[in-house]
Amino acid sequence: MNKTRKIFLTEKEMPTHWYNIHADMPNKTLPPLHPGTKKPLGSDDLAGLFPMELIKQEMSMEQYIEIPERVMDIYRIWRPSPLVRARNLEKLLDTPAKIYYKNESVSPAGSHKPNTAVPQAYYNYMEGVKKITTETGAGQWGSALAFATGFFDIELKVFMVKVSFNQKPYRKSMMNTWGASVVASPSELTESGRKILAQDPDSPGSLGIAISEAVEMAAKDPETKYSLGSVLNHVLMHQTIIGEEALKQMEKAGDYPDVVIGCFGGGSNFAGISFPFLRNKLLNGHKTRFVAVEPSSCPKLTRGEFRYDFGDTVGLTPLLPMYTLGHDFIPPKIHAGGLRYHGAGSIVSQLLKDGFIEANAVHQTESFEAGVMFARCEGIIPAPETTHAIAQVVAEAKKAKEEGVAKTILFNFSGHGLVDMASYDQYFSGALHDYETTQEEIRKSLETLESIGV
Amino acid sequence: MNKTRKIFLTEKEMPTHWYNIHADMPNKTLPPLHPGTKKPLGSDDLAGLFPMELIKQEMSMEQYIEIPERVMDIYRIWRPSPLVRARNLEKLLDTPAKIYYKNESVSPAGSHKPNTAVPQAYYNYMEGVKKITTETGAGQWGSALAFATGFFDIELKVFMVKVSFNQKPYRKSMMNTWGASVVASPSELTESGRKILAQDPDSPGSLGIAISEAVEMAAKDPETKYSLGSVLNHVLMHQTIIGEEALKQMEKAGDYPDVVIGCFGGGSNFAGISFPFLRNKLLNGHKTRFVAVEPSSCPKLTRGEFRYDFGDTVGLTPLLPMYTLGHDFIPPKIHAGGLRYHGAGSIVSQLLKDGFIEANAVHQTESFEAGVMFARCEGIIPAPETTHAIAQVVAEAKKAKEEGVAKTILFNFSGHGLVDMASYDQYFSGALHDYETTQEEIRKSLETLESIGV
Repeated sequence: MNKTRKIFLTEKEMPTHWYNIHADMPNKTLPPLHPGTKKPLGSDDLAGLFPMELIKQEMSMEQYIEIPERVMDIYRIWRPSPLVRARNLEKLLDTPAKIYYKNESVSPAGSHKPNTAVPQAYYNYMEGVKKITTETGAGQWGSALAFATGFFDIELKVFMVKVSFNQKPYRKSMMNTWGASVVASPSELTESGRKILAQDPDSPGSLGIAISEAVEMAAKDPETKYSLGSVLNHVLMHQTIIGEEALKQMEKAGDYPDVVIGCFGGGSNFAGISFPFLRNKLLNGHKTRFVAVEPSSCPKLTRGEFRYDFGDTVGLTPLLPMYTLGHDFIPPKIHAGGLRYHGAGSIVSQLLKDGFIEANAVHQTESFEAGVMFARCEGIIPAPETTHAIAQVVAEAKKAKEEGVAKTILFNFSGHGLVDMASYDQYFSGALHDYETTQEEIRKSLETLESIGV
Repeated sequence: MNKTRKIFLTEKEMPTHWYNIHADMPNKTLPPLHPGTKKPLGSDDLAGLFPMELIKQEMSMEQYIEIPERVMDIYRIWRPSPLVRARNLEKLLDTPAKIYYKNESVSPAGSHKPNTAVPQAYYNYMEGVKKITTETGAGQWGSALAFATGFFDIELKVFMVKVSFNQKPYRKSMMNTWGASVVASPSELTESGRKILAQDPDSPGSLGIAISEAVEMAAKDPETKYSLGSVLNHVLMHQTIIGEEALKQMEKAGDYPDVVIGCFGGGSNFAGISFPFLRNKLLNGHKTRFVAVEPSSCPKLTRGEFRYDFGDTVGLTPLLPMYTLGHDFIPPKIHAGGLRYHGAGSIVSQLLKDGFIEANAVHQTESFEAGVMFARCEGIIPAPETTHAIAQVVAEAKKAKEEGVAKTILFNFSGHGLVDMASYDQYFSGALHDYETTQEEIRKSLETLESIGV
C-alpha cells in the first residue's frame, strides 16, 4: 500500500519561468486608465510607483518570463514546496475523492506571499531603489515583503490595516525582526489617512485605505517606490511558480485535478495555483474546474459588478477593469480573514467574465469549522484565509461522495495560522459572526462609481 | 557552481528505528531512585505514570527500537525534515566553515517536539489511556503533545508555566485548536500548585513546578497518565530520528560534521541531533565535538553539580542522577527562552561527565542578536531557544575564520519563533537583560539537596 503523503521536487526540478496567462487569453483585459484623464495608461504613468522591469511585466504579452538567478537562490530557501495528499481528511470525510494540497505555508513568512515579494524587491534593488512602501491587511503580505526587502537592504514602510494591527501584534514583530517599520492605517502620516480619520476617527481601516496611504507616500517621494501584494498582472504571474510546481508534482503522483480551489482576496494565491492548469484548459481544452472562494462578507466575484474601479479607497491608483463592490466598500470588521478587499485583479475578472473560472462565497464560521477539522486530522493549522478554500474542498468532497464519483481535488494551502491564533480564539469564544453583505449596501457602494464604458 | 540549499530525503529513505545510545555507552547511567525509599526503581513504580511500553523503552539496553507504522504515518506529515546549508550566514560571517542546519521548525507545531509527542500519544493509546497530563514551559512541548493526542482522541490537560501563559497567548490557542485544555501553573487545581501559591502568590512558575502539578494529577487518577517532553531516556531516544536523518543527509552532501551543536533545556533536541553522530565517536573513534548550549541564567551543565535530584520542584518524581542547580532553583523570569529547567537528562549528564560532549553557556542578548542576524540573512526567524545554538554556531564560525581552518558545523534548528514574537519585541525594546546566576544562588539551591552517594 502506498502511504506516501508528500510529493517533492528537487531544487533542480524547480520551474525556471513564470507563466503569463495573459498571452493565452482569448479576450485580453481592458487597458488600465489614468485616474485623472481616464485615458489608457502609458508605462511612463507608472514609473513613479514601480521599477521599469515590473511595468514591462505588467504589460507583457510574452507567454513565459525567466526567473532571475538571484530570485531562484532565495526561492530555494523554502521552494519547491511540498504537494501533500490529505489522506486523513479523505478518510474523515469518507469520500471517494482524492484531495491534494500545495503547502505554501512552508515559507519563512508562513504563506505564498514571498513568491512575488522576492522578485519585486529584487527588481527594485536592480534599479537602485532604496525605499519601498506597501500596505498589508492581515499581515501576510507585509511580513513577506519585509522578509524579501531584508535581502536587498531596502528600507520598507508598511501601512497595516488598523484592525489587524491591533489584533495581530506578532505580525508587526515579524516585520520589525526582518527590519521593516510598521504603522497602523489610517495614519496621520498621509493626506489620505488624515482625510479618512477626519470622517471617522475610529475607522478600522481597510486594504483600500492602506493602499491609498502607501501609494501617496511613494508618489510624493521620487526616491520611494510602491509595492502591491495582489491584484496586478505581474504579481499574479510571480505566483504561478506554485502551479508550475504542482503540475510537475501531480504528474509524479500520476494524477490530474478535476477541480482546483483557492481562496480569493485580490487573486494572487488563486491565480498561482490555477493559471498553469488553466493553460491546459485554454490551449488544450481540458475540462478542469477552477473555483475562487471569497468570504460572504466581501463578495465581489459573486455579487459585485464588472466595472472600471480604483484599486484604493481614495482614488489615487489607475482605474482597472474588475469585479468590484466599489472602492468605498469597507468590509465589516467582524471578519477575521485577510480577504477584505473590494475588488479583484483584471485578469481573474476577465477569466470569470469569460466563464473559464467559477466563484463561490462562504461564511466565516463554516470556514473556521473546516479549518479546525483540518487542523485536527491533517495536523496543520490553516490561516483564516486558507480555511475558506478548505470549506469549499469539504463541500466538493462531500458532493463527490453523494454522487459516488471519484474525483481529484487540488487546493492551495496558502498559509498557516500560527500568527493568526487570535482569530481562532474569537471563533472558539463564539465572538465571530457571519455577515451577509446586503444587496442595498452593494448598490449604494457601487453608486459612487463613475460610469466608464465596459 | 552548486547552489543547492536543502538536502532532502524521500519518505522511503526515512530511518525506521530510533537509536538508544544507552546500549553503547561505556558507563551506564546510575539507576533512578524511588522518591520515598531512595531504592532503585522497578518498572512497577512507574506504571501509574507511564504506559508499559514507554517504561520498557526507558530501561531498555537494545541498541535500536523500531518505529511503529502508525507513528511513521504521522511523522510523514512533516518528516523527513530538510537539512539546509546556511550559505548566506557563511557569506555574512566570511568564514571558511561550512554551516548546516537540520530544520525541525517544519513540523505543524513548529519545533522538534512532535518527534516524541507522537509516539508517546501512540503508546498511551495502544494501552487504552484516555487522558494525559503534561507541563509546558514556553509552549513548544504542550502544543506538540496537543497536536499528537489529537490523532488518538486522548484528552490532554496542559500545565503551562505562568510567565509563558501570559506572554504567549497564541500557544494556548494552538493547544485549544488541537483540542487540549490549558491552565496556568502554579494553579489551584493541585496540592503542589496550592503549596507554591501559598508561599508566593505571584510565583511566575517554572517547569519544575508545572511538572509537580501534572505528575500529581496523573498519580491521583488511575485513568490518567503523564507525559514528559524532555529529560527521560525514551524521550531523548525518540528524538534521534533527527540525527539519523541528518547522518544520511550529510552523506548525500558528501560531508561530515566536525562539531554538532544544539541548545539545551533538558536535553531532547540536543540528544536528537547528536546521538547518532555520537555513536561514531563511541564505537568508531570519530573526533567530532558535541556542544550543548544553555542559557547563562540557568547554567546546570556548566556550573551545576552532578547529583541525584528530583525532576520536579515539589519532589514527586523519581530521583535521577543529573547535572542540576537543585530542584528548588527558579530561573529569573527575565529570561525569554524555554530553557528554564534546573536539571539535565541522566544520559546527557553521564556523557558530559565522561567527556564525550561539552557544554557552553550564552547570554540571551547575545543569543537574540545571533537570532536576528540569522532571520535577516537566512530568512527564518528562530525560536528564542534555538537562538542559543545559533550564537554558538556564530562563535565557532568566527573562530574557524581566525584560525583559518575549514570545518563543518551542524546545528539543530529546533524551532521557529513565529509564536514567540513577544520575546523579540522585548529584545528590540531593550527590556531583556542578561542575568548571570551567582555562585551563591547555586550553592544555596544545591544545599537543600539530600546527599545520596554519587
